Amino acid sequence: MRATTIHAPGDIRVEDVPDPTLTAPTDAIVRVVRGCICGSDLWPYRGENDITAGDTIGHECIGVVEEVGAEVTRFRAGDFVVVPFDHCDNTCAHCRAGAHSACVNMSMTTSGQAEYARVGQADGSLVATERTEDEDELASLLALSDVMPTGWHAAVSAGVQQGGSAVVVGDGAVGLCGVLAASAMGAEKVIVMSRHEPRQAIAREFGATHVVAERGREGSAAVKEITDGVGADAVLECVGTDQAMGTAFSVARPGSTVGFVGVPHGVELPVQRMFSKNVGLRGGIAPVRRYLPELLDLVQSGRIAPGRVFDATMDLVDSPEGYRAMDERRAIKVMLRP
Amino acid sequence: MRATTIHAPGDIRVEDVPDPTLTAPTDAIVRVVRGCICGSDLWPYRGENDITAGDTIGHECIGVVEEVGAEVTRFRAGDFVVVPFDHCDNTCAHCRAGAHSACVNMSMTTSGQAEYARVGQADGSLVATERTEDEDELASLLALSDVMPTGWHAAVSAGVQQGGSAVVVGDGAVGLCGVLAASAMGAEKVIVMSRHEPRQAIAREFGATHVVAERGREGSAAVKEITDGVGADAVLECVGTDQAMGTAFSVARPGSTVGFVGVPHGVELPVQRMFSKNVGLRGGIAPVRRYLPELLDLVQSGRIAPGRVFDATMDLVDSPEGYRAMDERRAIKVMLRP
Repeated sequence: MRATTIHAPGDIRVEDVPDPTLTAPTDAIVRVVRGCICGSDLWPYRGENDITAGDTIGHECIGVVEEVGAEVTRFRAGDFVVVPFDHCDNTCAHCRAGAHSACVNMSMTTSGQAEYARVGQADGSLVATERTEDEDELASLLALSDVMPTGWHAAVSAGVQQGGSAVVVGDGAVGLCGVLAASAMGAEKVIVMSRHEPRQAIAREFGATHVVAERGREGSAAVKEITDGVGADAVLECVGTDQAMGTAFSVARPGSTVGFVGVPHGVELPVQRMFSKNVGLRGGIAPVRRYLPELLDLVQSGRIAPGRVFDATMDLVDSPEGYRAMDERRAIKVMLRP
Repeated sequence: MRATTIHAPGDIRVEDVPDPTLTAPTDAIVRVVRGCICGSDLWPYRGENDITAGDTIGHECIGVVEEVGAEVTRFRAGDFVVVPFDHCDNTCAHCRAGAHSACVNMSMTTSGQAEYARVGQADGSLVATERTEDEDELASLLALSDVMPTGWHAAVSAGVQQGGSAVVVGDGAVGLCGVLAASAMGAEKVIVMSRHEPRQAIAREFGATHVVAERGREGSAAVKEITDGVGADAVLECVGTDQAMGTAFSVARPGSTVGFVGVPHGVELPVQRMFSKNVGLRGGIAPVRRYLPELLDLVQSGRIAPGRVFDATMDLVDSPEGYRAMDERRAIKVMLRP
């Protein structure tokens, strides 16, 4: 099949690689209808994560079931499905407690930017829906594979409350979905920290009531003013850098929680500040399957349209350009058409 | 007045010092009926915190109001009161949100091991109750000044649930109160990590269902076995060292929260583990006033008797020996009689 591969920092190619095959009777193979590039794919692209040269890359996709293993009973060839990037059996003790991303049978999509992807624990992982040809709906369904549930997880972890205030640190696709989540959960003030006009515009579409363009101390002061000197009731950290985490803690009111979903890179948590201010931290890899039914309903009822985060669509062969566009911040998030 | 003072690591004295006076119209002066030594007093005693030579020490006490400032309306001389170690106005935005330990008018008791103590924001801070001569009840009321609400805060922060499992890391007075809290909140399995038999015995009295004496990997493995291979639903970190925090995270099930109340000393939080396992951290300085009414009711109805953590009572003049006894772990917690 044709697949996006990574060979070294900055070296993304589209090549012919062997098709994925069923490796366990609980697997399914999905023919990718839409895939995309994740902000977290930029970590290896920028040389901040280890790379195995020639590996396929991409963990987000929606598609059509092509083939299922002998033990898969809930899906069959032809089903149109959303594929959570983190596969889970949805039955183990961790899944039953809502911690699907720590499933004892967890695996991940590894060729989402390709023609086919293998899904582990297909019965537990996949969620079927009606096939659609509508491009906007395809985009929103694709967003349910990772970015929207991840923003949602930040909001859940931060404890966003109806009528409360929420700050979103990060204006990437996940941060924007965090804005959408906080807004959908009824936060009265949704404050996004963003310096980029196109992202500010989407944030406002998604329900942001305030945009703070300042950074550092000035940014914290601006949030404090918006929150009547108290700080935010909930903070969503959607970046993963030490600076973003520092900002998150600086704007959190005492007793609140920072919900974090940015993969930590070089983060040192301010334990003394957390202790003295009683500001907690919760979050991590999003348990996508946990939120999928609810989010699918929100998408299909028209209450949320997270697909709006895709501001570029390219053919699979152009994925190297997709990486460049995201790396240079010319695009927020790139959808790929195999 | 006679007061306990600290001059250098290991150098605790009982001396005559000036009586505390009203410094603000919202202050009260309390004549101490019982004070005590806190595990956290051992940090400066052991040279791990900075010391100002000659300072009074001690932040826990109960007593009788001696004098009130002009703006104090809810208390008058003669009232018998529990003094939260952290004083608060109980009206600011942080107090209203339950984050009393971040009150905008916060101060602390600084001469709890003495004849008199000043209390800031007396109307907000103090809780009156019937005067008692019963030694057991005095002990339990004194425990409400810090150690019991702190253990309670660990349990609240960790999200202890009825029917769930809870691990308590630390068998000091706070850890034991954490056991009592988790048990009172209805946890079905209350697991205390303790190697000291007298402390294990009190933990069992307080409702511990399991005692794990092993440390490190063996300790974690023991907890995992008790929790059916899953890990604990809630973990209370009641020490403040890096080792204790590491143990806490190692026994927490994915999706759970570590509630921490031990003042952090040299703690580096395992952010990658927190992220990959979705284990949160919440807690800090206990908002004592928030919990006082409920805990006072539990004490007076006989449902909890946290005073059991005091295993030695000494006259104020013997407080240097009290410090030695606690430092050498000959005593769990020493009550002082001025």
